Order: sequence, then C-alpha cells, then structure tokens
Amino acid sequence: MKEISKLMEYRQDVKVVDATLRDGGLVNDFFFTDEFVKALYIANVKAGVDYMEFGYKASKELFDVKKYGPWKFCDDEDIRRIVGDNSTDLKIAVMADVGRCDYKTDILPREDSPIDLIRVATYLNTIPAAIDMIRDAKSKGYEVSCNIMAISNSQEGDLRVALDMLGNTEVDVIYIVDSYGSLYPEQLQRLAKIYVDATEKYNKKLGIHAHNNQQLAFANTIEAVGDGIDWLDATYNGMGRGAGNCSMELLLGFLKNPKYNVYPVIQFVERHINKLIEEGVVWGYDLQYLMTGLLNQHPRTAIQFTKEGRKDYAEFYQEIVALD
Amino acid sequence: MKEISKLMEYRQDVKVVDATLRDGGLVNDFFFTDEFVKALYIANVKAGVDYMEFGYKASKELFDVKKYGPWKFCDDEDIRRIVGDNSTDLKIAVMADVGRCDYKTDILPREDSPIDLIRVATYLNTIPAAIDMIRDAKSKGYEVSCNIMAISNSQEGDLRVALDMLGNTEVDVIYIVDSYGSLYPEQLQRLAKIYVDATEKYNKKLGIHAHNNQQLAFANTIEAVGDGIDWLDATYNGMGRGAGNCSMELLLGFLKNPKYNVYPVIQFVERHINKLIEEGVVWGYDLQYLMTGLLNQHPRTAIQFTKEGRKDYAEFYQEIVALD
Repeated sequence: MKEISKLMEYRQDVKVVDATLRDGGLVNDFFFTDEFVKALYIANVKAGVDYMEFGYKASKELFDVKKYGPWKFCDDEDIRRIVGDNSTDLKIAVMADVGRCDYKTDILPREDSPIDLIRVATYLNTIPAAIDMIRDAKSKGYEVSCNIMAISNSQEGDLRVALDMLGNTEVDVIYIVDSYGSLYPEQLQRLAKIYVDATEKYNKKLGIHAHNNQQLAFANTIEAVGDGIDWLDATYNGMGRGAGNCSMELLLGFLKNPKYNVYPVIQFVERHINKLIEEGVVWGYDLQYLMTGLLNQHPRTAIQFTKEGRKDYAEFYQEIVALD
Repeated sequence: MKEISKLMEYRQDVKVVDATLRDGGLVNDFFFTDEFVKALYIANVKAGVDYMEFGYKASKELFDVKKYGPWKFCDDEDIRRIVGDNSTDLKIAVMADVGRCDYKTDILPREDSPIDLIRVATYLNTIPAAIDMIRDAKSKGYEVSCNIMAISNSQEGDLRVALDMLGNTEVDVIYIVDSYGSLYPEQLQRLAKIYVDATEKYNKKLGIHAHNNQQLAFANTIEAVGDGIDWLDATYNGMGRGAGNCSMELLLGFLKNPKYNVYPVIQFVERHINKLIEEGVVWGYDLQYLMTGLLNQHPRTAIQFTKEGRKDYAEFYQEIVALD
C-alpha cells in the first residue's frame, strides 16, 4: 500500500504537460484557430501547467502542408505568433517522430527558438534513430524527452535493453506511452517498476502518457504518480486521438500542489472545447476503442469506424477479433 | 504491490451485479419498455452476469405510481412478466431504501416471489432502520445486502461502529458505495481495508458500487477486486444517475473468469442503449459531475445543471464552491 502522505503532500518534481494541440491535433488535422491556441496558452499559464506541447515538427517533404493546420509542423514563427517572447513560467514543447521529421534542419539551436523541450517519439525498434535525434537536440541546447510508444506490445527484455541505451544518452525524461489504452493500473505499476529500476541508475526522470480506451487514462496517470513518475501528460477535456487522453481538469483536481488551478481549465473547456464538439470534432471513450484496447491493438480500425459514423459495435467486434 | 497472479487467475467468489435498470432508472424515471427489459435479461443471462437488479421496491404511498415506470416499484408480477419462472442461473435483485419503502407489506416471502436478493440501501445514520429491514428480509428467506451510501462523507469511527452492528446481523453482503464519485483508488484501498478487517471477523462478503464523476468508476471497481471485494456492480454503457457507473463492458472485459462474455453486452449497447441516447436520455462523465465529485458533494446540483441543458461550467463552479 502506498504511503497515505502521498495523497496530501505533493512532490515538487511533478510536471504537468498539456498535450491538447499535439494529441488533439490528430483529431482535427491540427486546424486550430489562433484564437483557440492563444486562449489555451493563457489558460495553461493561469492553471500553472508546466509545459505546453504545440504539436509536431513534421517533415514538409513527407506531409503536404496544405492538408494540415500549422501545428503539424510547428514552425518557430508560428509559435512566436502566439507566445511572443514567452515571458512566462510555461515552457514550450514540440514532438518529433522518428522517421517523420527533418530534425537536423527543422530544429534550430535553442537560443534562436521559442521551444524549450523536444519530445522524441519512437517505437522500441527505432531506438537507435531516436538516440540520434536525442543527441542532435541536446547538442542544440534543448531539454529532451524520449517517448517510447506502444509499450503494451513490447517484450520486457527489449524494454530493458532500450532503457539502458537511453540511460547512456543525455536524455532528460523517458516516457511510458500506453498508445493502445490497454494497460490496467496494476500492470502499469509493474511496468513503472522496470522503468524506475533502470532510470534511477542513470538519474533520468520518468513520464506517463495514457489513452482512455478503457476509461483508465486518468486512473493510470495517478497510479503512475504513486509509483514515482513525475512528468504527467494531460489534455483539456481529454481531447486526443481515438478515445483521447487523461483529462487536464481531472489531473489538476487531483494534484495537491497549490500552484495548479483547475478553474482556468474549466473556463477554457466551456468557451473553446465545447465549440469544437458542437462543430462535430469527435473524440473520447466509446465501445470501438474499448475493444481495440482490450485486444491490445492499434486504434486505427476504431478511428476509421468513428469517422464512418458507424454504430454497429457487434459487427466491428467480429471484424477486429478476426484481425487478432 | 498486489500479486501478479490475481490478474491472470480469477476468484470464484466474484459476483457481477447488473444495476442498469435501477441506477439507470434514476435517469429516465424507470420508463423502460418491456422489450428493453426482456432483452437486458437475456443479455445478462448470455453474458454470465450473476445478479440483475430490476429496480426499487419504492413505497406507493410516498411515490405517485403515475409519475414513474414500473421498475420504481418492482411488483413481483411485473418481474414475472419478464422472467417467467426464471429458470436460469441469473438471480434477481431489487433495492429497498430505508425510509422510502413499505417492506413489511411489499416484500413477500421468498417462496412466493421471483426475487432472490434484497439490497437494503442506507446512510450511516439510518443503520438501525436498515437492520430492521435486513431482519425482515432474512426472515422471509432472501439473500440480503446492505449498501452503505455516501461513504466518502463518513467518519471512520462511525463506519467501524456500523460495520460491527451489521456484522451482528444475518446480512450476507455489505457494500461500499461511492455515491458522490469522489474517491480515488488509493483512498478506496484504505477504505476497503476497514471493511475487510471488520467483515472477516463476521464472515460477510463485500461489494462495491462506484460512480464515474472523475472517470474512476471502473478503476475503483478493479482496485476493489484487488483488495478482496467480491461483489461488483456495473451497468451497460455505465448508464446511471449523473456521471453514471462502472461500465459492464469494461468490467467483463477485465474479469478473467471464462464464464463471463462481453459480446452480448456489446450487442445490447448497440441495439438498445444507443436508442435511449438518441431519444435524449443523458448520463455520463461531464465537468459538472467532476466538480461535485471533487468537492465531495451530492450530485443533485450537477443533475439539475444537466437537466437545464446548461453548459456554463465556470458559473456552475462558482455556484457550488459557494455551497461548500
């Protein structure tokens, strides 16, 4: 049983990362208005959020800039249009996917950029490429995290090797990413122990990015807090791919550090997120996501089911069991 | 850390209770069609659910029968219209609220009734009246549970006294009820320990009934399984008062006992629950429920907010903080 003091006390090391634009952008192809992004920035500052992730640094060779909003690419000038010189305590993050970004040219030296943190996203089998990106970003002066995706599908032995490899880099934070929303809190606790054992040795911080396929994104995030994980991803109203993420309003309600304030989050959801929902942008728990989570599958089939406006859950279940 | 075997193994003692008609009835004043109720009964049988709660045994003196559907009152003949002689393994339950039912006259001897289990619902301060109802139901031959509501508002000392009092009755099962959806899994674990310590002495079973105000109904239910709690309430698609309950499809997906089958639940949600949603019946997580959960308040103000179709979360937060 965890120490009761952990609920009432708080750890100074806990950091909250708002991933609304980045994971939420996967739902609307990053077409957020500047009004939305500016209001989100202000809400994050008021709420005491530590980092705001603006989107991806995606390759303009691989992705057609006309098909996406600006936050797929996060040009420094776009970020500056929102934050100016960012004279606040809120730090700015972007995600860079292995194999989908031109990091050598598109990520500038930190002193020339409004960005503070580069989040390198990788699968286990592309760790060597991720390490090259980590080195590049560290050499340019950034804080760097490495987000190991789809961890529920990995072999424990491979994971331990990867953690040793990352431990020997300058990376600051290593993230557990439950991409399929398939982990139960008890499993997360066991997984966290593997990460904690490895990263204590190398003096790295740990983070958690959860998905809500089984209505466990928040539960898994607060389980992780109890297990010694400090960096916590959340999104406003859980906006994110498929079933979405840990809700910022739930997380800030839970955290006891008085620097966090849930009220600006509530205001933002009322004024801006509800408008997106009324416009027909769809995310959040539904049975198709439960099913892919339960079967530990990538949610792409469930996302397609949602896009087609299908409601024939039983037929869908037959389809994905056949894929298993 | 809990034993890893608990995730893969299963306990024979676990019982799943479908509370869709009873807690869901609070959302639509119990106006379910017979087609809906029969299909739910069949789905529960196919899914391997252990108990199906049909509704309340409410007093017809206190409540106008014209204002509610039949499952507010659960006349034995209404239940028989659905289940006949109930020649299945699914047992039938009803809830009887302290102070809101005429149990002496309305609950018949078990040999004359299709009902198997009487669920006595009480607050801590009405335990003596609950004990009178427990004695009445046991003397008539029923299985009996006692559901202690709003436990997040109780004093630990009062709870221990109540558990001793109930321990000395013939009650079979004692329920932890997180009426306000305000408990975190870590708190539930501590609370469960108090119940387990008391009920081991008296050889009683324990149950959990969770609400989803903070998206933790399922997480708290599976936390409870790990803490030795056997009787688990769930509802189809989480249908229930306010933010709703632990979803049956999530729970059966989690439980490893091969007697349980999630597919009939998926079919029922597709065919029958979606229709209710299309007709405008509303339940489930939303920010007003998070707020009452966070403040450990009864959700009645949030339910009113929902009924009025309000979306001004920030104003609502100001209102309920003022009530605190």
